[in-house]
Amino acid sequence: MTAQEPSCCDAHGDGQHPLTLRRLGIDTHQEAVIYMPSDCHVCRAEGFQARSRVLVSANGHSILATVNQTTPGGLLAPGEAGLSEAAWGRLDASEGTQVTLRHAPAVESHGAIRGKIHGKRLGREAMRHVVEDVVAGRLSDIYLSAFITACAATLDFDEVVSLTQAMIDTGQRLEWQSDLVVDKHCVGGLLGNRTTPIVVAVAAACGLTIPKTSSRAITSPAGTADVMETLAPVDLDEAAMRRVVERERGCLVWGGSSRLSPADDILIRVERALDLDSLGQLVASVLSKKAAAGSTHVLIDIPHGPKAKVRSVDTAQQLGRLLEGVGRLVDLDVRVLLTDGSRPIGRGFGPALEARDVLAVLQNDPNAPADLRERALDVAGAVLEFSPNISAGGGPRVARRVLEDGAAWSKFQAICEAQGGLREPPRAALTHTVEATRAGQVLELDNRRLSRVAKFAGAPADPAAGLELHVGIGDSVEAGQPLFTLHAQAKGELGYALDYLEREADLVRLGKEEA
Amino acid sequence: MTAQEPSCCDAHGDGQHPLTLRRLGIDTHQEAVIYMPSDCHVCRAEGFQARSRVLVSANGHSILATVNQTTPGGLLAPGEAGLSEAAWGRLDASEGTQVTLRHAPAVESHGAIRGKIHGKRLGREAMRHVVEDVVAGRLSDIYLSAFITACAATLDFDEVVSLTQAMIDTGQRLEWQSDLVVDKHCVGGLLGNRTTPIVVAVAAACGLTIPKTSSRAITSPAGTADVMETLAPVDLDEAAMRRVVERERGCLVWGGSSRLSPADDILIRVERALDLDSLGQLVASVLSKKAAAGSTHVLIDIPHGPKAKVRSVDTAQQLGRLLEGVGRLVDLDVRVLLTDGSRPIGRGFGPALEARDVLAVLQNDPNAPADLRERALDVAGAVLEFSPNISAGGGPRVARRVLEDGAAWSKFQAICEAQGGLREPPRAALTHTVEATRAGQVLELDNRRLSRVAKFAGAPADPAAGLELHVGIGDSVEAGQPLFTLHAQAKGELGYALDYLEREADLVRLGKEEA
Repeated sequence: MTAQEPSCCDAHGDGQHPLTLRRLGIDTHQEAVIYMPSDCHVCRAEGFQARSRVLVSANGHSILATVNQTTPGGLLAPGEAGLSEAAWGRLDASEGTQVTLRHAPAVESHGAIRGKIHGKRLGREAMRHVVEDVVAGRLSDIYLSAFITACAATLDFDEVVSLTQAMIDTGQRLEWQSDLVVDKHCVGGLLGNRTTPIVVAVAAACGLTIPKTSSRAITSPAGTADVMETLAPVDLDEAAMRRVVERERGCLVWGGSSRLSPADDILIRVERALDLDSLGQLVASVLSKKAAAGSTHVLIDIPHGPKAKVRSVDTAQQLGRLLEGVGRLVDLDVRVLLTDGSRPIGRGFGPALEARDVLAVLQNDPNAPADLRERALDVAGAVLEFSPNISAGGGPRVARRVLEDGAAWSKFQAICEAQGGLREPPRAALTHTVEATRAGQVLELDNRRLSRVAKFAGAPADPAAGLELHVGIGDSVEAGQPLFTLHAQAKGELGYALDYLEREADLVRLGKEEA
Repeated sequence: MTAQEPSCCDAHGDGQHPLTLRRLGIDTHQEAVIYMPSDCHVCRAEGFQARSRVLVSANGHSILATVNQTTPGGLLAPGEAGLSEAAWGRLDASEGTQVTLRHAPAVESHGAIRGKIHGKRLGREAMRHVVEDVVAGRLSDIYLSAFITACAATLDFDEVVSLTQAMIDTGQRLEWQSDLVVDKHCVGGLLGNRTTPIVVAVAAACGLTIPKTSSRAITSPAGTADVMETLAPVDLDEAAMRRVVERERGCLVWGGSSRLSPADDILIRVERALDLDSLGQLVASVLSKKAAAGSTHVLIDIPHGPKAKVRSVDTAQQLGRLLEGVGRLVDLDVRVLLTDGSRPIGRGFGPALEARDVLAVLQNDPNAPADLRERALDVAGAVLEFSPNISAGGGPRVARRVLEDGAAWSKFQAICEAQGGLREPPRAALTHTVEATRAGQVLELDNRRLSRVAKFAGAPADPAAGLELHVGIGDSVEAGQPLFTLHAQAKGELGYALDYLEREADLVRLGKEEA
């Protein structure tokens, strides 16, 4: 081979000059990236540059990837290529696998996305092609962003139905041996609104099938899966989950990553990066997850308020109608509960602290947070009314009875035992209580900054960490009275949280001292 | 320090626990990426994940970057971080620089972009904020894509003016000591349409100031800068360029990368990735570059045809009106020439081959390609009419006289000498001629595939490489008559081009044999 001949790789994919894969272990989230030295022959011959799209083939598999180039003499030698972890997984690669490259072929859905950008409606088939390409990783982040942007303000009802159905159809779907499989969901998490464990206990105690999967925290100090994990194992495979549900009718497990509605997992990360929450995409996201989990009846809690994700009652109603309407067309019986989203619920914010609130409610502790109990009973009551045995309007009464007579607590214990054993939530090694510097009435609790300080204290990575609130809106406090306590496992993290508090004005806003 | 304390990096930027930079040499194009081990304390404490946006600070500089995570024990040790080359440059980093991280602060223009997504017009100030954030690298690729998508179909006239003005104002602007500084541009390159060197020679020979900067090829076998580089040095700094223009009135240099209209360089790569060409963005891109180059009068050649970038005469006219109208409001006198874009121009496609066509025209060679000569005279004539000394409609006649009497060729030689010396374009080591397999009339020349085979043969990286056409549309050929010749420097590349030809049907389509 002379210097003028292809030295590292085949330029058009006939397999004569493959590149050798090296695992660099770079996690780009879902984007498939191929790293190649900029002096690689194939880059020069084909004109590949950083951000070119290429088809990478090995062992009969092919994936599309975005090119990043490495400095000659750096991470990669001529003849070598690296892959991002997402690409590595999709190609089922091993160290030393030989790959060939060629220019990326046309992606079928690109034309549909460009059409949507220019104002054309996406029909059912076009939407399915887009979602299939999303799931197969054929769309770069730039195209995913373009798709989400083009849809954000313009999806009509039929398009939302098409998107939801395509997201359901491109994932797995759980099946349960019951015609009535109930579920609940809260749109736009409200700090501390940890009703799910209580709702599942009540519904299962009443004989409803409620195989609940929950997520971990993404931007909050705790997700339901994080809270439950302080009480019982939640990382169950499908078979173990089925055994729990067969025995107890309900479960409270972590939903895992991406088997169900994998399109949603990909799209939602881009939506979050753009801070875009369009109603259409929200509906498709929520309903596709619920349908994939095998639910037939879904109660959706929509907290609304000036600082909640849903700002006004009008938007909440509009969202509710869309959820119910789209649900009907994808075979889900959806009902909506509009709730107050103006203030945090419960006292603890962080996995173990929220678990303690949940336990207090289930155990009928007289000091249990009343707002959490009442909210959970409202939601559980609405869920119970999916049952043909419970009359419209009769749900909350039944829920309260089941909670107060201890049946819900027994059921919760049984579910936890079936999942691997009920345990005591951990307590943090360090606490620090912040007191009122003067007397006054509590006017406002800042959800966003309370959440932030709980995270600085270590939640949810340290399950014992977080923030415990001692006052509610409307309470009158004296100077020196505790407002909240920080819980942390490490001095450093407690320090971060305290530094943050020093820089920020009152998270608990007090009014003038009462006369 | 105990295991529970922050071990690698400060969580909120007060400088106590910095990360140490290592240069990984990864070119992501323009996106600033920070690579961090996933077990880094700061990732855990702050909840950073792949795709989180962070503020990276060192030595009083700060940049926004997107997080990629590396496998523990892999590329980076705890306490280390890497940066993409774009981030490395923006932060002016060195090996071992200490950086601190915090959550990315709000980016001012995000709200404006979300507003645009939801249908709000972007006012002048909002547009300026967006473009400033583009130039400062504060927008992730995902946001750049969202901005481009949201604007693609919806920019109104005032928004195009605002975008153009903001793109001009956020870059440098050259100034020339003349009230009449002319320029020309071709929208949507047409294969072989290398009129620029001829137009500059004619205009400068007539005494007009024409400080021409050109680009290198992006998707074509040659850009004007690539062609000129086979004839003279083109990589001149601003001072050298000024000396050439002072002496000869004109120059033909490479425009360099990003000083002029840096926003355009960033946006255009994302537009290309999306294959989106909206008229508004095209106008802003072209006019901002021309204004930044210090031009006062610009002639724009718009080739149109079914396979050209501009498909119809209607679109060409619409684009022309927008260019002229927006030009007026950003102080550019813009005139438009609609031309035939249905067939390639000249015979050679590739830097040296196109340079030979240009030389043949300038030297009044009787075998010079007539289509290139006539097209160049049309454009040069229109440029000359910007001069108050040349009457409307009189330009082409003056241009032809200056070409035919050798004044243009003398001026071209003088410009090349001033740039560092005229040289002979290289000849390729290898050639291969493709002949007609039967007699017939040439019905069609496939621009796109002719361009592709020229690139396979090595153009523009090998300046001598490319494709030389021996026939034109309408010609009658005999079996065995040469259709085109491939030029290549390396056997491998010639082989790629031949393989491609074998797989593809006729690039030169022949009709039935004439009776």
